[in-house]
Amino acid sequence: MTDYSAGAAWMNGKIMPIGQASIGVLDWGLTHSDVTYDVVPVWRGGFFRLDDYLDRFMTSMAELRLEPGIDRAGIRAALVQMVAASGLRDAYVAMVCSRGAPIVPGTRDPRYCANHFFAWCVPYVNIIPPERVAEGVSVYIPDDIHRIPEDSVNPRAKNYHWGDFTQGLFAAKDRDFDTVLLTDHAGNVTEGPGFNAFIIKGNRVVTSDHGVLHGLTRRTAIEMCQVEGFTVETRPLPLTEFLEADEVFLTTSSGGVMPVARVNDRLFGNGAPGPQGMALRDTYFRWMEREDFRDDIPYDS
Amino acid sequence: MTDYSAGAAWMNGKIMPIGQASIGVLDWGLTHSDVTYDVVPVWRGGFFRLDDYLDRFMTSMAELRLEPGIDRAGIRAALVQMVAASGLRDAYVAMVCSRGAPIVPGTRDPRYCANHFFAWCVPYVNIIPPERVAEGVSVYIPDDIHRIPEDSVNPRAKNYHWGDFTQGLFAAKDRDFDTVLLTDHAGNVTEGPGFNAFIIKGNRVVTSDHGVLHGLTRRTAIEMCQVEGFTVETRPLPLTEFLEADEVFLTTSSGGVMPVARVNDRLFGNGAPGPQGMALRDTYFRWMEREDFRDDIPYDS
Repeated sequence: MTDYSAGAAWMNGKIMPIGQASIGVLDWGLTHSDVTYDVVPVWRGGFFRLDDYLDRFMTSMAELRLEPGIDRAGIRAALVQMVAASGLRDAYVAMVCSRGAPIVPGTRDPRYCANHFFAWCVPYVNIIPPERVAEGVSVYIPDDIHRIPEDSVNPRAKNYHWGDFTQGLFAAKDRDFDTVLLTDHAGNVTEGPGFNAFIIKGNRVVTSDHGVLHGLTRRTAIEMCQVEGFTVETRPLPLTEFLEADEVFLTTSSGGVMPVARVNDRLFGNGAPGPQGMALRDTYFRWMEREDFRDDIPYDS
Repeated sequence: MTDYSAGAAWMNGKIMPIGQASIGVLDWGLTHSDVTYDVVPVWRGGFFRLDDYLDRFMTSMAELRLEPGIDRAGIRAALVQMVAASGLRDAYVAMVCSRGAPIVPGTRDPRYCANHFFAWCVPYVNIIPPERVAEGVSVYIPDDIHRIPEDSVNPRAKNYHWGDFTQGLFAAKDRDFDTVLLTDHAGNVTEGPGFNAFIIKGNRVVTSDHGVLHGLTRRTAIEMCQVEGFTVETRPLPLTEFLEADEVFLTTSSGGVMPVARVNDRLFGNGAPGPQGMALRDTYFRWMEREDFRDDIPYDS
């Protein structure tokens, strides 16, 4: 029996343990970060909103003019087959398309590269440990690091340009915060490494519409808020307004809805997770098991 | 005999053909573009300015808080040993340090990753073919794509955040230009994919000092211009001033000094490479063989 406990990968039609999956050092996915990806969660043995994640991945590839050499149905089949083989019941499933290496050695023309698709899955990831979420997440917003602007790199084509986030994470961790959230150059709150940010103020919920990935958990949160009777606004979200919220929460496919108890030196809910954010968190995990959002995985055993 | 004609790599103390060198798909060098690198040219069997390139690489690693697990002398020895084994007399030699994979699976704390160094070399690369340089390079400057700002990603720590360049290269190639050059959000000329940009106006030479890598070929060009009696200014370079230059040239470790004959619809020198730029190009290749800048490589054969 092959050991897939650490995860599995799909490359060129073959499934292998995650530790064996690699890309060449000349691949532009590495040397130009010329690559897009998406991450769909598997929960209790089923994909959550798989077709919505596939829609976004196909759009990201088209925007970056990447041609994966496999169609949507083939990508879907690869993901299902890989997770089924892995045996993982709760998983973080990545689909990736890289520019690849130039077909002509030394060329710098992105039109002439061997684009390629691959996928991998690992046990479900919580970007912030659930025990920290239960206490209320702490978020650092630096004033000297700003999110890469939209007219430099399009944030809606999900990408690996994380230099701003990485420097922000160092700044946050050095100060004992759980994570970092970045503003744009105009002082609006954008996103953090792997998550979107929301505020609740009275009956209104606000999240940024620009400078951010349009996250699928963001979309699920918007839908949950609408069901709960909130008025949802997607628009620029100034930091000053953000800090005056009743509650703040983050959304991610790797941990769901995460209420925030502290932003810099501002406490929310006396430093405990807000009740409305916690209710949305519970709702999210219930929705993860909704039949209309699920695709059950045909495990081998 | 191992075939190193396509290039060689050094990984974990082993030298291998370039086609065998790869990194894992969970490595943050790929998934967060959390990696720095440098590229030193080998010319006629010797490294050019190797210690200057090593200085910059060590600085880049320190700025990104990367610890390669090998000291400067070890890196130097790895590069020499690798190129000697490859037999390549003219080469493009990359040294790379990646954040690596988290030591604790699933963590998002950049302080707890297995940073690692590797290197590779391929036959010398000209980012623009010499026959095109002889005719005068054409450069596209888009007005809707801007260089990633310094307070998002530090351009002086050489990095693979090329999303802005890649979109710019598509725009340039679609319009039949050789390459792309990006402005910052204030309308100053910055850099292109793998090169710095200079103007000559009368007895003055100007190149940007911010929003750019402080390229080693840029430094060599500054030194050559000073020897030639030009006044060299390193400061913000507005696009309007750039377009009014007598001559424009680009500098890169992968092709040297490259005179520009056209920027968008503006011709320089009636569409031919400028004489001063061509003279600097010749000087550069002579300087590449200067004994005081060279480290001869002890080839096996």
